[in-house]
Amino acid sequence: MTSFFNDILTTIAERGRALIDFSGRERAARGGDLTELFEALLSERGEASGMAIAQEIFERYDALDEDARHQALDVLASAFGVDLEVSRAAAETFLDAPDDATGRALNIASEPRRQELFRRLNLAPDGTARLVAMREDLIDGLGGHPQWRPMDADFAHLFSSWFNRGFLVLRRIDWQTPAAILEKIIRYEAVHEIADWDDLRRRIDPPDRRLYAFFHPRLVDEPLIFVEVALTGDIPAAIGPVLADDREPIDPRTATVATFYSISNCQRGLKGVTFGSFLIKQVVAELSRELPSLRTFVTLSPIPSFADWLAGLAGQDDEAEGEVAIGESERASIADALAAREDARSPDAGLETSLTQLAAAYLLTERDRRARPRDPVARFHLGNGAILDRVNWAADDSPRGLGQSFGLMVNYRYEPDEIEANHEAYAHDGTVAAAPRVHRLARGRGVARRERTTA
Amino acid sequence: MTSFFNDILTTIAERGRALIDFSGRERAARGGDLTELFEALLSERGEASGMAIAQEIFERYDALDEDARHQALDVLASAFGVDLEVSRAAAETFLDAPDDATGRALNIASEPRRQELFRRLNLAPDGTARLVAMREDLIDGLGGHPQWRPMDADFAHLFSSWFNRGFLVLRRIDWQTPAAILEKIIRYEAVHEIADWDDLRRRIDPPDRRLYAFFHPRLVDEPLIFVEVALTGDIPAAIGPVLADDREPIDPRTATVATFYSISNCQRGLKGVTFGSFLIKQVVAELSRELPSLRTFVTLSPIPSFADWLAGLAGQDDEAEGEVAIGESERASIADALAAREDARSPDAGLETSLTQLAAAYLLTERDRRARPRDPVARFHLGNGAILDRVNWAADDSPRGLGQSFGLMVNYRYEPDEIEANHEAYAHDGTVAAAPRVHRLARGRGVARRERTTA
Amino acid sequence: MTSFFNDILTTIAERGRALIDFSGRERAARGGDLTELFEALLSERGEASGMAIAQEIFERYDALDEDARHQALDVLASAFGVDLEVSRAAAETFLDAPDDATGRALNIASEPRRQELFRRLNLAPDGTARLVAMREDLIDGLGGHPQWRPMDADFAHLFSSWFNRGFLVLRRIDWQTPAAILEKIIRYEAVHEIADWDDLRRRIDPPDRRLYAFFHPRLVDEPLIFVEVALTGDIPAAIGPVLADDREPIDPRTATVATFYSISNCQRGLKGVTFGSFLIKQVVAELSRELPSLRTFVTLSPIPSFADWLAGLAGQDDEAEGEVAIGESERASIADALAAREDARSPDAGLETSLTQLAAAYLLTERDRRARPRDPVARFHLGNGAILDRVNWAADDSPRGLGQSFGLMVNYRYEPDEIEANHEAYAHDGTVAAAPRVHRLARGRGVARRERTTA
Amino acid sequence: MTSFFNDILTTIAERGRALIDFSGRERAARGGDLTELFEALLSERGEASGMAIAQEIFERYDALDEDARHQALDVLASAFGVDLEVSRAAAETFLDAPDDATGRALNIASEPRRQELFRRLNLAPDGTARLVAMREDLIDGLGGHPQWRPMDADFAHLFSSWFNRGFLVLRRIDWQTPAAILEKIIRYEAVHEIADWDDLRRRIDPPDRRLYAFFHPRLVDEPLIFVEVALTGDIPAAIGPVLADDREPIDPRTATVATFYSISNCQRGLKGVTFGSFLIKQVVAELSRELPSLRTFVTLSPIPSFADWLAGLAGQDDEAEGEVAIGESERASIADALAAREDARSPDAGLETSLTQLAAAYLLTERDRRARPRDPVARFHLGNGAILDRVNWAADDSPRGLGQSFGLMVNYRYEPDEIEANHEAYAHDGTVAAAPRVHRLARGRGVARRERTTA
Repeated sequence: MTSFFNDILTTIAERGRALIDFSGRERAARGGDLTELFEALLSERGEASGMAIAQEIFERYDALDEDARHQALDVLASAFGVDLEVSRAAAETFLDAPDDATGRALNIASEPRRQELFRRLNLAPDGTARLVAMREDLIDGLGGHPQWRPMDADFAHLFSSWFNRGFLVLRRIDWQTPAAILEKIIRYEAVHEIADWDDLRRRIDPPDRRLYAFFHPRLVDEPLIFVEVALTGDIPAAIGPVLADDREPIDPRTATVATFYSISNCQRGLKGVTFGSFLIKQVVAELSRELPSLRTFVTLSPIPSFADWLAGLAGQDDEAEGEVAIGESERASIADALAAREDARSPDAGLETSLTQLAAAYLLTERDRRARPRDPVARFHLGNGAILDRVNWAADDSPRGLGQSFGLMVNYRYEPDEIEANHEAYAHDGTVAAAPRVHRLARGRGVARRERTTA
Repeated sequence: MTSFFNDILTTIAERGRALIDFSGRERAARGGDLTELFEALLSERGEASGMAIAQEIFERYDALDEDARHQALDVLASAFGVDLEVSRAAAETFLDAPDDATGRALNIASEPRRQELFRRLNLAPDGTARLVAMREDLIDGLGGHPQWRPMDADFAHLFSSWFNRGFLVLRRIDWQTPAAILEKIIRYEAVHEIADWDDLRRRIDPPDRRLYAFFHPRLVDEPLIFVEVALTGDIPAAIGPVLADDREPIDPRTATVATFYSISNCQRGLKGVTFGSFLIKQVVAELSRELPSLRTFVTLSPIPSFADWLAGLAGQDDEAEGEVAIGESERASIADALAAREDARSPDAGLETSLTQLAAAYLLTERDRRARPRDPVARFHLGNGAILDRVNWAADDSPRGLGQSFGLMVNYRYEPDEIEANHEAYAHDGTVAAAPRVHRLARGRGVARRERTTA
Repeated sequence: MTSFFNDILTTIAERGRALIDFSGRERAARGGDLTELFEALLSERGEASGMAIAQEIFERYDALDEDARHQALDVLASAFGVDLEVSRAAAETFLDAPDDATGRALNIASEPRRQELFRRLNLAPDGTARLVAMREDLIDGLGGHPQWRPMDADFAHLFSSWFNRGFLVLRRIDWQTPAAILEKIIRYEAVHEIADWDDLRRRIDPPDRRLYAFFHPRLVDEPLIFVEVALTGDIPAAIGPVLADDREPIDPRTATVATFYSISNCQRGLKGVTFGSFLIKQVVAELSRELPSLRTFVTLSPIPSFADWLAGLAGQDDEAEGEVAIGESERASIADALAAREDARSPDAGLETSLTQLAAAYLLTERDRRARPRDPVARFHLGNGAILDRVNWAADDSPRGLGQSFGLMVNYRYEPDEIEANHEAYAHDGTVAAAPRVHRLARGRGVARRERTTA
Repeated sequence: MTSFFNDILTTIAERGRALIDFSGRERAARGGDLTELFEALLSERGEASGMAIAQEIFERYDALDEDARHQALDVLASAFGVDLEVSRAAAETFLDAPDDATGRALNIASEPRRQELFRRLNLAPDGTARLVAMREDLIDGLGGHPQWRPMDADFAHLFSSWFNRGFLVLRRIDWQTPAAILEKIIRYEAVHEIADWDDLRRRIDPPDRRLYAFFHPRLVDEPLIFVEVALTGDIPAAIGPVLADDREPIDPRTATVATFYSISNCQRGLKGVTFGSFLIKQVVAELSRELPSLRTFVTLSPIPSFADWLAGLAGQDDEAEGEVAIGESERASIADALAAREDARSPDAGLETSLTQLAAAYLLTERDRRARPRDPVARFHLGNGAILDRVNWAADDSPRGLGQSFGLMVNYRYEPDEIEANHEAYAHDGTVAAAPRVHRLARGRGVARRERTTA
């Protein structure tokens, strides 16, 4: 099927052009403002000339300045939401005789009008990309426009369906990849900045380095999310050697460990659509198949919130509740560490025990309001079913690494056979799966082990 | 972008394999019956191991016989519909304070649980194709299981979103197309049967013949709908010369007319998702761009229901209401025509005036219960904004053509500048756009011209 | 590299068009007959406008009838051969002082002028294909034009360089292959005729059937040679079960034997350029890599000349020299066999011993004038280093099989570790590598075993 | 054909691997030194195991240091040249009876044995690239090894046949091109250095900039030659504005001039195989087709040898013969110009008339020993049939531009209708086609106009 299907896709680019030509013939008499065009797109005219109207809408929208775009979004938020009259009638009918049929009718009646509008906007050339861009505008203005929240949720709902993982395509990115894509990888890398093209090349060209991204067939030149992988003989305990520009590549067929050292989401407009968990599992599958010698799949991850948390803790008086406490004896040295952090210096080597114990305790016990781990990276990997495997001292001496976590990093381990059970325990009661050595560290801070341990 | 994106798609095939490998590792402890697996897929286990569970479900489902599949569909119909409790609460909340937020909440609460189940089933390898196949089973059993109707509507709703025209890819099918696709064209052709590979070749290989199909990126080797086009110098008045195996091809750059002489939907499982209107308009755009000499875009279409209608009319007594009536003087000759039809013979040449007038009157005036043209092909093209352009006598002497319409065929014309207005008038009050000559024919039966005429 | 390079090739088709456009601008003043154009192409005008002149030559040549083409070929044969004057001078210089430099100068001086002419003709759109077609004309007329032999050898020399195996691309042909290629497979199959598309599908679509072809980048839609392969559990002893339309495919991963049951050259114009040996070895390599369970690579081959040889032998009197003789006692039964052959009937079962012994003896001992095996298929496979492995009785009951060899077929075995030694022994003294069972058969006819045996 | 053929090429990469596997099985007993392997490759063993032996040769050769490689090349130069005995016999036979047949026999007999050796080396994976690399070694050592000259000529002869323009593929290079190719463009640019990736992007990504390269199907990731094109409204008179990083791109559909401002050969190992003329003409054809508004195709070219020539002239006494002379009155100012050149400074504005006249006179009259223009760039474009169109003052103020030609540059114009006549006149008697304004400049130096003028 391959080659024929390749051709199928090559016509996508051409199609855009065709649509323009065709719509040009239709468009002579088109007029009205954006609101009228929104209505027109939902009307019978929209059924006949949807492509042309959708294109017209985007062309006008793109030409607007920020204020005018906000006005357009206000219109979408206020006039294209749930039809209250229709919904009221359907709700009453349902409550009179609740069953699957009246329930479905209610579901249809209560669908915000925007949903169909968005689906028809997708007919325009590059419609999907333009809808994603429109949502970026929305997100940027959300702070000042809380009334847009339902519309934002509508976008998230729609995109979750369209960007269903079943429609995504995993693609390895390497030195044979077009520059137009590579340029975006440089731009979107959010964890360990890519300095320039040479730096990029060091991450994708050596035989023991991989970069995989998800793409969607309709967003042809836009990665959705990507992960960078180092193939190694041991689990890396620091990011420096992974990124060193003078390191010697190894033969990937001899590697036993695959380390995911950077994961970056690329599309702000797809916020709320989760790709990361699928990406990691898919890459584990790809690598397992290609390199049977691989035994271990881990991350090398930052602890973005650790230092802030510790700073808060250090500022509390002794009475403050919370499972983890700072002893009097170490207050001074922790103050030193916090001072070093301010100056982007490494903490004193003597602090290793204190800080690694505190980090372990922090990750195992501190929760957010929804009872999930307070650290966002921990939340992501533990939620995916990974195991908190190791806390690494002096692992990232970049200004960011020192500022976030005194240079500490963490390995989360993906153990295919345990992912499902870990995820379920985590989802059920917030259980954090952790290696014994992490529990041992936490015990040093008096944190009893309640959690399920996994080796 | 082209070439990189081609590669993106080639990984689709590989991905299926990878998923299997990976899920194989997860699956050891998997058990339970299909109902349990449906629930598992919607649970937190489903979040962690969705691919594996979805695959497991399809493997089991595929292995079932018809009865057991019907039981599975019964489970989906009864236990995975709208959650009545949750919906009731949301409906009451909404009625208390109806606004966009409570309306959206109601919309989400009343979504049938199947919808999320279907979205997760899509994670399986070939998930989309398998869901489409599952709906085929559903449609086949719908007559005996009216309780499946809401589920059928759920499928249609989901597929309308996934198969949004913005995600479809138009592709020309020719003699360079893989045999695996061509074989399906032969199988799916529903209007003028393709006898064998030589017959197929005559429809796709000569320079003045075209075949275009829509594809979806996830259903790589399955056309969704296709249209066959003849490029000619005049509007064809009969199908025979179009399909003749000894005809001389013309230089397509000299053609002025593109005739759509066959349109076939390929996927029963996508019933209710409309592709035809988009396909025709897209092909008009493609052809206009490639061949600027083309001026006229018409169909050569059957009138599937004409003879049945006329037989009914002939059986009525004079009092029967209805705009079109058969005069006493022609009852005998119409009886002859109906007898000829029984024997798959052509009607007598002397009947041309009667039958073409009756056909024009039929198409212009007869409506179904929803006030749309009674003839399904007319309904499709007129609904798309086409014009009823000409009624052709002795246009199709195949048994089917004689049986459906005494060998009459119709040209519908797509006039890009008028499509929108025609569609709107049709949608608004059922107005049929027709050429003056068609109105003249109908006047011969006493049918006054109420309709908007278009030249 | 893959995807970029794919694109490289897609431009080939476009290029042809571009050349035409460009040459069109150059061509206004072009004139003269073919002979003048040949000279022009070799002149300085040819350096500047080679593409246009080459295209002009082919357009004129294609428009000629057979007689006029023969005249053009006569011109090429007589006026564009070796430049005798220049060669004479170079030969004398060389003989005066023979060294590498004067030798090279002689080599250059004695190159027929056609060679450069052909190289420049290759500049035309589809130049390579058109040169191959021109040679087909030459071969067809060679019988009546012995003076074309040097020109024919020039073509063979040039094509051997251009179609160097290093430039060929092996490609699997299957049901995903474009119909335009498959149609040519049907047409070019020379051993076991392909009846229709269903028959073709049985040879390429089941998982245990393969078809591989060599292509050249410049002849994009023309296979050069192809081989059909059956993956089986045992070495097949007859062609019928291999081609049976109701057989059950096996899982290719369980196959231990790959049988090459048909090899067809496709391009008459490339006569003398050998592809077969490379093709078989390349396919052995491909299959070994994909299916490690394969242990045995054999052919199932006809013995095209056996029956003719035996008929000749039967017609001789006893005194005729030759190693193999027919005993008096079997003359009658062999006469029966020859009579059955005349009627396309199978020979009597009682003849199995006689005929298989005679076939073994024939293949082991009978030689042509150049001391190579007299049977052309044997010559090919033994020359490639294969082993004569088995003689099969009642192996091909088609009219052709009965007519050529009383229904007998042979397995030749390719044993990668022995190919080189077998080929060398064969090339050195004509030694035929054969399995002991074949020698045993031959001993039944009194043929002593001189040959190296290989198990 | 496109998509199937794409697939054909994708197998090239895989094939390399397959060959290795297969040859691995053959290679167990392989031994001997390089000379023995050369002989083996030409022997019957080579016919059976050519791929394996060729690969073995390259692996050993690649592992050698420079001295050892030179020894290997010495062997090829001395022992694999023309077979003197065989050639002598053939020469005598030919002289006895010189005709086409004995001439061809002589041609074959006198072919250096290396030619067949090279053809068989091409069987190795990446054989073509490795042969090209081997010739690079040869060229690098040619100064110290004059005995290699015949071998060098053999390489050139073979590569001229293999890299026949009919086998080359023109490919546009843009920002969608794989980084691996772009990196080579940066490296190979020989005229106006590409500083970094941003600089590269400015040359390939804006809509009014193009870069085209020739590729060969067997050297998949290596451009052979490329040309950079600027689409403009006027003929550029200086390189600065063309390369400026802050310039505004224009809509290419409004451009009337295409300027070839840089042409770079990429493969030293293909020295002597001419691509440039074909490349320019092909790009003219491509651009003409895509952008019908283009009317003028020119270069913006350096005059690499002008300053050196003028320095020589200035050093001569008055008696020196030569058509162009320096008057006494301008000796001082020319000395100034030469001094400025030494310091990489721009010459004084007052020198414009003198220097542009001298440049015109130089280009029109000065010849090398073979009576061709002394300036290599002039030789190339005039030889291709271009017209010397304009001499530009202050056109290139880079150190190289000032050093080569006091900052002067030249436009050569390609006028499709005149190319052939210009080329022929040039080839016949060295006539330089030049615009009247160039002749006027030269007349200022007393150079009479003998040349054909072209507007």
